[in-house]
Order: sequence, then structure tokens, then C-alpha cells
Amino acid sequence: MSEDEILRLIGRHLPHSTATVPTGDDSAILSPVGDIAVSTDILVEGVHFRTDWSTGADVGWRCVMQNVADAAAMGARPMSLVVALTIPDYVDPSWIEDFARGLGQACDHVAQQTGPIAIDGGDMSRGPVITASATVLGDMEGRTPILRSGAQPGERLVHCGNLGASAHGLALLTAGRSGSHTSLFTRPVPPVRQALTIPATAMMDVSDGLVRDCRRLASASGVAIDLDTELVRAASSPGVTLTEALTGGEDHGFLATVPDTCPPGWRTVGTVAVGHGVTVDGGQPDTLGGWDHFDTGS
Amino acid sequence: MSEDEILRLIGRHLPHSTATVPTGDDSAILSPVGDIAVSTDILVEGVHFRTDWSTGADVGWRCVMQNVADAAAMGARPMSLVVALTIPDYVDPSWIEDFARGLGQACDHVAQQTGPIAIDGGDMSRGPVITASATVLGDMEGRTPILRSGAQPGERLVHCGNLGASAHGLALLTAGRSGSHTSLFTRPVPPVRQALTIPATAMMDVSDGLVRDCRRLASASGVAIDLDTELVRAASSPGVTLTEALTGGEDHGFLATVPDTCPPGWRTVGTVAVGHGVTVDGGQPDTLGGWDHFDTGS
Repeated sequence: MSEDEILRLIGRHLPHSTATVPTGDDSAILSPVGDIAVSTDILVEGVHFRTDWSTGADVGWRCVMQNVADAAAMGARPMSLVVALTIPDYVDPSWIEDFARGLGQACDHVAQQTGPIAIDGGDMSRGPVITASATVLGDMEGRTPILRSGAQPGERLVHCGNLGASAHGLALLTAGRSGSHTSLFTRPVPPVRQALTIPATAMMDVSDGLVRDCRRLASASGVAIDLDTELVRAASSPGVTLTEALTGGEDHGFLATVPDTCPPGWRTVGTVAVGHGVTVDGGQPDTLGGWDHFDTGS
Repeated sequence: MSEDEILRLIGRHLPHSTATVPTGDDSAILSPVGDIAVSTDILVEGVHFRTDWSTGADVGWRCVMQNVADAAAMGARPMSLVVALTIPDYVDPSWIEDFARGLGQACDHVAQQTGPIAIDGGDMSRGPVITASATVLGDMEGRTPILRSGAQPGERLVHCGNLGASAHGLALLTAGRSGSHTSLFTRPVPPVRQALTIPATAMMDVSDGLVRDCRRLASASGVAIDLDTELVRAASSPGVTLTEALTGGEDHGFLATVPDTCPPGWRTVGTVAVGHGVTVDGGQPDTLGGWDHFDTGS
């Protein structure tokens, strides 16, 4: 099958684009109404997913969602994605079509929350394993970006999303069990609309675990964060263990700080104080490190 | 080495960013002055490059240039790139640092032609081979995008760049020869400034071979294109064969159509006529197909 034939196969699953010039030329042309948020994330077979656990559509879904979460975490409306794929010889064109179906389903889901989003470009090559790297463009629509560095002592730390669900789903899959919870690993659902409406002073998406990502937010803001395990348990998805909630990555929920009350749909999980670093119930979170996909363990 | 340590290693080679919010948060925030061009391209070890022929810096250079050419081919000023890398266990951090050096060198080269460009984000993961996928953002700066579909019968087909040089360099490397020409394969130099100043009716970058890319331009514009081999020879880089000039990909020169005279720095290579398809000296270009990295030969 030629690249052109595969592109036709893919095309019918992708959402209609609102690009000024759609994909098909050297670049697509987009017309945002404000500043642009840009971020890129990669998924690698055998590192981030296994083809016996995730269908092509699952990988496509996750490819969209993990990128969309990065744009929304700035307060930007996800408007566009480009996707670069590598495909081994043993992968059937039907897998690629299924991947495109997942891209389309995820875009539809996001579109229902925050408005049109499309796949405005891509590239494809042979390679020894499946890799899917995507870049998201988000439209600030005149809003001010919400950075990780805006948290102030005295503020409330809040979370929105399926805390610990991805790690719990992965644990079930690893144990050879199936069920609806496993889809929280294979198909994360970042609550994009909530990220775009919260009056947050700081925000980020939880991609590497609550404790680890709290460290990043605390470090960027020059503050201390204390997580309350009772609140974290209450904010977790059903069935999730405390360890999964504190260290599990890739839920792509949102972590934010707010000056006053907890907004509807969000859950308070901790507090911001003068100082630095992250504590759990006032103590050290020992080995609760979270994920570093690149760290070789040294 | 952790991802954070590698990022520090990389950072010192990258150009200063003019982003409103630089990389380091969930997304970088850019503030273009017009519409945005977006395009993505991937390089895979063993498919697009070999580590015994290309250094890390060469791969970084090419990663920037092939993407930059896609933005410039629309008439957009390349302003920003994000890069996603996969790295096998056997690759040393020094290779990654060298790759970053090549990114920086290429950005410097582009910046001297058309103004500041930066690496505004990235992602990194383990993987079985080196892959580098980049996304470029180009700023239309209020100009109208130059599409592939704008060519009119009677116009002149012009080219700017090192026509056939990449294929010639590859042929030398394949034959076990070295020398300065090989760098035209490992380090393509798209003439970005010329692409941003030509009053073209249609334009694209030559990434898959002159004949093949002419077919795309002819098809998009609904016109016929005739290439003149005498003019193609004259427009080619020194030492390049006619076959290399007609079919060699990845020079990332620019192909454009203009109503009148050939602009300075460009070379006329053919004519646009009523009809469809591409002819060479009025006849069929038989097997001069150009490149399809995904085509398995079926």
C-alpha cells in the first residue's frame, strides 16, 4: 500500500478541519484568535503501550488526549494536532485505520467539551516499532496563560480528573485481569472543559504522578505543597489505592491552585505554604517518585 | 542519566527563544503576528539516515531544515519547532548533545536568513532506534499563503536550491566515497529567504524528487508541467547527474510558478500548460518516480 492510499484510508475517520488551508499542502494554515500554546508528546510501543493491551484506536485516543491535556493545562483551547507515525512491516493497514478512528473519536470527545479540533497534518514512515508523536496547538483566545509558577502560599491545591485510574487500570492489565477499569489506562479522559473555566493561579496536567508533578509545581512557584491523604483518597477514582493515586502517571487530570473555594467539579487535595518541596500529611513521601520514562534507574 | 539532566545538556546548544512563555511549562506560548503554518516531519534511523554516515549534529540539522522548508514553502516565516526523540539504550548522551548542537546550528542558519527561530518544546523516550520527529510553526506575518494549487497555464516553473545534490551525496556515500558533496545529503540547505520573497502563484519544497513533486503541483493546480532537461541540468548542483536532478529527493529546494520573468537566485526549469501530468522534454518520464518512504514496492 502506498502512503497516498493509507492517507485516504485514514482521512475518512478524521474530523472536519476549520483550518484556513487544510492539510495536503506543505503546511496547514491556522487562524487563531490569540496566542498559541504548543507542546509535543510521544508514545512508543513497548514503552508506553502494548498492542495486546491497547487497540490501534486506543493508541490514537491516547495520542490525542495526552497532547490536548498539555494545551488545556495552560488555559488554551486545543484547536489542532499534527501526528507523526512510524509503522513496522508487521503492522497491517487496518491497524493504522483503527489508530485514525481513535484519533477521530478523541477529537470528537474534545470538540464536545471545548469546540472544534482537527488533525491538520502528519507524516508516516517505516520503523521497527510503532511510535506516535503528536504536537498540539492551543488557542489562548485572548486569555492569559496559566503557568506552573503562579501558586501562592495559603492557596488551595485542587484536582480534576480520574486520579490514579490509569495506574489502577495498568495494574489490572499487568495482573491479567480485564474489565471497565482497564479503559482508564488505555483511554484517559482529561476534563478539558474544567481546565478552561477554572480561575486558577497555577495549573498543570498530571502526567507523571501526583507527588512528582506537585514537586514540579512547587518548584516552579517557589512554594511548599502538602498533600492530605484523606482528601487524596476522596478525590481518587473508585477502587484506586492510595499509592496509585499518589504515584500513578498518565491520568491527564489537572492539578491547580486557587485562592479561595474549590470550584465545582474539582476536589481539594492539599494546601500551598511558604517553603519548598512536597510533603504528604506533613511528612516526607519516601519513595513515591512517579514516572520518568527516560530514567534508566541510575 | 535522568531526562532533566539530559535536558540541561541539550539546553545550552539551543537558540534563545522569543516565546511569550518558553518551554518548561505544559506548553510554550507563542505570539505570531498573523496566521500560523504547521507541518510535521519524521526522521528514522535506518530509513532516512545511518549513524555511520550522519553525526548527531547532522541529524539535528536535517530535522530542522526539512521542517523549516515546509513552512517556508507556504510563504511562512519559520518561527518555532518542537522535537520528539526516541533513543535506544546504546546511544550515548553525547549523541543527544550533538543532535542538539545540530538543531542549534540549523536554527542559527535559518535565523540569519529570516529571523529568530527556536526549539520551543520537546519530548524524549526510549525506543529501539533513533527517531526524530519535529513540528514547525511558521508565521504568515499577514501574507497570503502560497499554495500548490495556484499555478496557471502559461506560467514559468522555477527552482531555487541545490537540485539533485542530496541524491548525489547519497550516491557518493553508498559508493563508499567521502568529500564535501556528501554534506549536501547530510546537511540540506533550503534557501528559506528566497521562498519568502518570491512573488509566486504556487510553491512547494522538493522533498521527494523533482518529477514526483511536479506531479503533485500539477495535480493540485489542475495544469500540465513540462520540464526542460537542458534547463534542469543548468539548474543542478555541480557533479549532479540528470537522473539525480530529476528524481533525487530531500534537497528541500523550492519549486514555484511565476507569471513573468525568473526572479534573481531562481532558475527556470520548465513551463506550465493546459492539461495534466508531467512531461520531460515533451515526453513521458518513464520510471522517474522519486521517493515514497512508506511504499513497500507493491
